[in-house]
Amino acid sequence: MTTMDDVSRPGRVAGPDEAISAEELQLAARNHGIPLEALRYDVTPAGLHYLLIHYDIPEVDPAAHTLVVDGAVDRPFTLDLAALRERPRVSHRVTLECAGNGRALLQPRPVSQPWLVEAVGNAEWTGTPLTPLLREAGISPDAVDVVFTGADHGVERGVEQDYQRALPAADALREEVLLAYEMNGAPLLPQHGAPLRLIVPGWYGMAHVKWLRGITVRTEPFDGYQNAVAYRLRRDADDPGVPVTRIEPRALVRPPGFPDFMSRTRVLRPGRCVLDGRAWSGHAPVSSVEVTTDGGQTWAPALLDPATGGEWAWRRWRYEWTAEPGRYVLGARAADASGRRQPVEQAWNRGGFANNLVQRVEVVVLPE
Amino acid sequence: MTTMDDVSRPGRVAGPDEAISAEELQLAARNHGIPLEALRYDVTPAGLHYLLIHYDIPEVDPAAHTLVVDGAVDRPFTLDLAALRERPRVSHRVTLECAGNGRALLQPRPVSQPWLVEAVGNAEWTGTPLTPLLREAGISPDAVDVVFTGADHGVERGVEQDYQRALPAADALREEVLLAYEMNGAPLLPQHGAPLRLIVPGWYGMAHVKWLRGITVRTEPFDGYQNAVAYRLRRDADDPGVPVTRIEPRALVRPPGFPDFMSRTRVLRPGRCVLDGRAWSGHAPVSSVEVTTDGGQTWAPALLDPATGGEWAWRRWRYEWTAEPGRYVLGARAADASGRRQPVEQAWNRGGFANNLVQRVEVVVLPE
Repeated sequence: MTTMDDVSRPGRVAGPDEAISAEELQLAARNHGIPLEALRYDVTPAGLHYLLIHYDIPEVDPAAHTLVVDGAVDRPFTLDLAALRERPRVSHRVTLECAGNGRALLQPRPVSQPWLVEAVGNAEWTGTPLTPLLREAGISPDAVDVVFTGADHGVERGVEQDYQRALPAADALREEVLLAYEMNGAPLLPQHGAPLRLIVPGWYGMAHVKWLRGITVRTEPFDGYQNAVAYRLRRDADDPGVPVTRIEPRALVRPPGFPDFMSRTRVLRPGRCVLDGRAWSGHAPVSSVEVTTDGGQTWAPALLDPATGGEWAWRRWRYEWTAEPGRYVLGARAADASGRRQPVEQAWNRGGFANNLVQRVEVVVLPE
Repeated sequence: MTTMDDVSRPGRVAGPDEAISAEELQLAARNHGIPLEALRYDVTPAGLHYLLIHYDIPEVDPAAHTLVVDGAVDRPFTLDLAALRERPRVSHRVTLECAGNGRALLQPRPVSQPWLVEAVGNAEWTGTPLTPLLREAGISPDAVDVVFTGADHGVERGVEQDYQRALPAADALREEVLLAYEMNGAPLLPQHGAPLRLIVPGWYGMAHVKWLRGITVRTEPFDGYQNAVAYRLRRDADDPGVPVTRIEPRALVRPPGFPDFMSRTRVLRPGRCVLDGRAWSGHAPVSSVEVTTDGGQTWAPALLDPATGGEWAWRRWRYEWTAEPGRYVLGARAADASGRRQPVEQAWNRGGFANNLVQRVEVVVLPE
């Protein structure tokens, strides 16, 4: 008899020479990253922002959709979208990155959504702050975790579930946390959580629960799949690990010149070239970006543009380069005010999370 | 000395056991298909429509952008967007499919953008018809080809180029061909060709030139790369082949139930289940859809919804199924009024184009 365990297998790490599988390709064909040339836009246009959907985009009727707030609160309640839209309205520009960004470049490779470096975007999210809602509900002083439940349903590593992830209560009560109903000034698109999603500035994407339908306050730690099993930094399958939380610093280079279709190698003609890109961190403001044109052997400081997008948005950086004929490997390296800095050698964990190894952009400068 | 030939290699077919390469994965991470659950939407929302970008999305200023019409015409001219928007305005719902859809499932596999079955979308395109413009320009009675040039620049299989593809003059003069500046009622998004693209209803995506900046009428056949080299149906590298043109009939199943995260296998509980999906053809109206639940051993007719989207849009089909515990492989098979019908065994050509092999959706119906 067929059981759920036949359908949904445990997580695993690829063998030393194991190539990308048909299952990984299937995920890559539906989820997508930002095309790197779109790093030119300060606010990522609809459809170019990265997207990771664990199960299916659910069918949600905005007119009938409600948000239930319950658990360890004095006054549980249910709100519809109209009621949420009548509450105070706030917008934040937020850089969102998938916790698994960089996974497919790791050796050995954790087998899951096979991101290279492109699982990022910077959008303007508009909604109502969460904290006043939790206060009005009378959140218990003994609150430990706040669980956010989406309308998306599936099975993952053998566990059938609606997508749920909890924040520690202290983080759920941070003033920047939003219940968002608009992205870039328009109603949320289905794939970004319409009609309502959580936005947790500074945190990796797994915290920003889409198609949000429930918020439950708990006085005991939440042991659901996405907190206790999936999004944890573990050395091996037996390591209990620690939860994935905030975004590690990263800089990306906007690839210069023009590409070869198949290899995406960049072609330039000799001369002066202003390299640019974006840098961000969820821990603290970006404090510096360094650029390499020789694959990390030497580094030079880039200029940071003013932080016009606010505290949670990426910043543009620029670096003037005189390109002479030859082959180059470009990269950029961000550091933040907390003292974190991108590594030039890979860190590794079993889920391939929070990996921020420096990008490698292959460039050929042709003769005149 | 490094040359363009070192950067950009000839097209090739993967070896018998060759797995998906890092280059193919890199293309899959930036281009993307429609998530199959989005077959539920009659008009595909922004960001869920398939996307194939040969080079980079170019940076185009809509206010400065112009369209040049020249070549074998009596009165060449240049128009800006404002002038195009003042001309007669028409909307068509059009199903657009990448000519390479299905490529990564072929044995052997042509090495290029590794589509499975999801490179499709159905949008409402608004713009002005091309024919009156060509007539006003005084298109030569000796016109053979009309070349459409985009603003995107790159190198492909060793050939540096702006993307260009020509239509035979008789096809360019069909009344349904549009110069589109809106998609689904909003200005074109950068990735869909903003501010102007060609729409050629019924043809594969390679004809719908994005970031359109030039239209040149020729009295000799166009021998540019995308017509003479790339988008052709060839048995082998020496076969001159024939150009890829109209979309072959295809039906897709909207996967029922819910998915396993990693394998995307569908899980259902026993009982009555209405399967549905979409079917289309660029040659003639869809005349029938048949459904299989046993991987193609037996077929039963589906019901076609009315063709509410017009002549060039996909049609929904439905099929009532009573799901009993077990494993199933679902698929659907379209036929059109021209007598074309989807094959159950693969056709093969060296580019992996115009492939419309029946989809396979793995489903497990669990015990009660």
